[in-house]
Amino acid sequence: MAATIGYLGPKGTFTKLAVDTAFNGEVKQSFATIPECIDAVNEDEIDIGVVPLENAIEGTVQLTIDYLVHQVRLPIVAEIVVPIQQHLLVDPEFTGSYGELSEIHSHSHAIAQCHQYLHQHIANASIHYTSSTGKAAELVAEKKGSIAAIGNKLAAELYGLRILDENIHDFPNNHTRFAVLSKKENQIKINHPKYSEKTTVLITLPSDYAGALHQVLSAFAWRKMNLSKIESRPMKTGLGNYFFIVDVNQEYDEVLFSGVIGELEALGCNVSILGTYPVYQMNDM
Amino acid sequence: MAATIGYLGPKGTFTKLAVDTAFNGEVKQSFATIPECIDAVNEDEIDIGVVPLENAIEGTVQLTIDYLVHQVRLPIVAEIVVPIQQHLLVDPEFTGSYGELSEIHSHSHAIAQCHQYLHQHIANASIHYTSSTGKAAELVAEKKGSIAAIGNKLAAELYGLRILDENIHDFPNNHTRFAVLSKKENQIKINHPKYSEKTTVLITLPSDYAGALHQVLSAFAWRKMNLSKIESRPMKTGLGNYFFIVDVNQEYDEVLFSGVIGELEALGCNVSILGTYPVYQMNDM
Repeated sequence: MAATIGYLGPKGTFTKLAVDTAFNGEVKQSFATIPECIDAVNEDEIDIGVVPLENAIEGTVQLTIDYLVHQVRLPIVAEIVVPIQQHLLVDPEFTGSYGELSEIHSHSHAIAQCHQYLHQHIANASIHYTSSTGKAAELVAEKKGSIAAIGNKLAAELYGLRILDENIHDFPNNHTRFAVLSKKENQIKINHPKYSEKTTVLITLPSDYAGALHQVLSAFAWRKMNLSKIESRPMKTGLGNYFFIVDVNQEYDEVLFSGVIGELEALGCNVSILGTYPVYQMNDM
Repeated sequence: MAATIGYLGPKGTFTKLAVDTAFNGEVKQSFATIPECIDAVNEDEIDIGVVPLENAIEGTVQLTIDYLVHQVRLPIVAEIVVPIQQHLLVDPEFTGSYGELSEIHSHSHAIAQCHQYLHQHIANASIHYTSSTGKAAELVAEKKGSIAAIGNKLAAELYGLRILDENIHDFPNNHTRFAVLSKKENQIKINHPKYSEKTTVLITLPSDYAGALHQVLSAFAWRKMNLSKIESRPMKTGLGNYFFIVDVNQEYDEVLFSGVIGELEALGCNVSILGTYPVYQMNDM
């Protein structure tokens, strides 16, 4: 039986684009919020959940990490990295140039990502906000005329829109990272060569003292374990209490990681492994 | 002449609530996106800009930091910390209980923050997404009937809605941090006692090698300078290149900070001070 994959919807969003690129043949089910998608995996309604981890348009990263840390501790079994490419989408019957557009519709984050482009080329159009980039494409397909949506290639295909101008986002190297969550690691089949291995570690400090983080990082540094990301996030128990999320650029192993965990626990820290998993890097899409 | 303060709008959002709590008597002007607000300060159209830095509902944090780092280097002159309190808002003529509500409207991040509450108490209502919490309140005020918005106290006042249930967010200690940006530091008058002092430092590493971050933190640690936040963010020049944003819990001074900067530059890092500023902690609002 094919696995069921849940993702942060609606249709035509960047999460759906990531899911379609990475998976093939599975049943795909859209969820309206990150917690709903994570809950469905936890309650065995679906096999796999795909939620944004970093630099997302439609979802907050912090919400994913906070929900995994505080509410539902599901293992991260893979990471999918996709480029964020924003295009200017119009009704196919619109034959004007982009200077003639009167309205631009999109999610506020997508509008912000194309800020300089809009300022330089379409400064006279009015800006309208939608709850997702997919919704904006749907609206343009319904309303037609001299209006445009900002969204991805999938939204253009889904709603039969024409790409009037490609790659209109201001920064060329924008990526979004998605976490693949599942209790059933062996069901994950991703149609792409593996790019690297990563282990995500959650560390909570006993108290907020000068140099605490430095001491924590020493445990990794002297073992020459490279960290690709580190982020401190407030605990929900009050200001001044922090936890740290550390991404280590290697697979979990009993020797190095056991050593790190032992040293950190001796310092009074709590340490959990949120996942050790392959990273899949998608290219132009 | 009163200073003009720009903020991330629209009306009834958490940024507006922060601005109204912190400032009094100034002219306030709403901006649709974070980059537009920052640009307006930079081009001297307004004196002060207020944009979300962390844990925002309506804006991405990453966008604020990225825009300040890559596009417009404006000094942070103050930080405002406000609690995020979500309420269930209805038309005053709705006399039912929350179990009788048929529709819930809000920004997807606000819906997600109240996920467990909605799941337990209003599981049968349909969920509808709006581009901001303010927009949801406006919609409920117009449409009336057995529908509700999720939003803050300001949105309730602004659109004449009744608070049917208070503090329905799942986590009690949710805060949003806002950066106050200005070229004119002496114009900032905030109606609140100062909570602490902070300095935000931007550090870019010459290359991505094991232990680089540990070495950077050593410069702070041996001086017993406490860091309240650290975050690594990818440079937009390609994967694998990172910069770090470090919040130091003290005011800039020539002795300690000059020492840190000298050591880091000797290691090949680039160091910039994004701001040294007072922090204002707002309470119940």
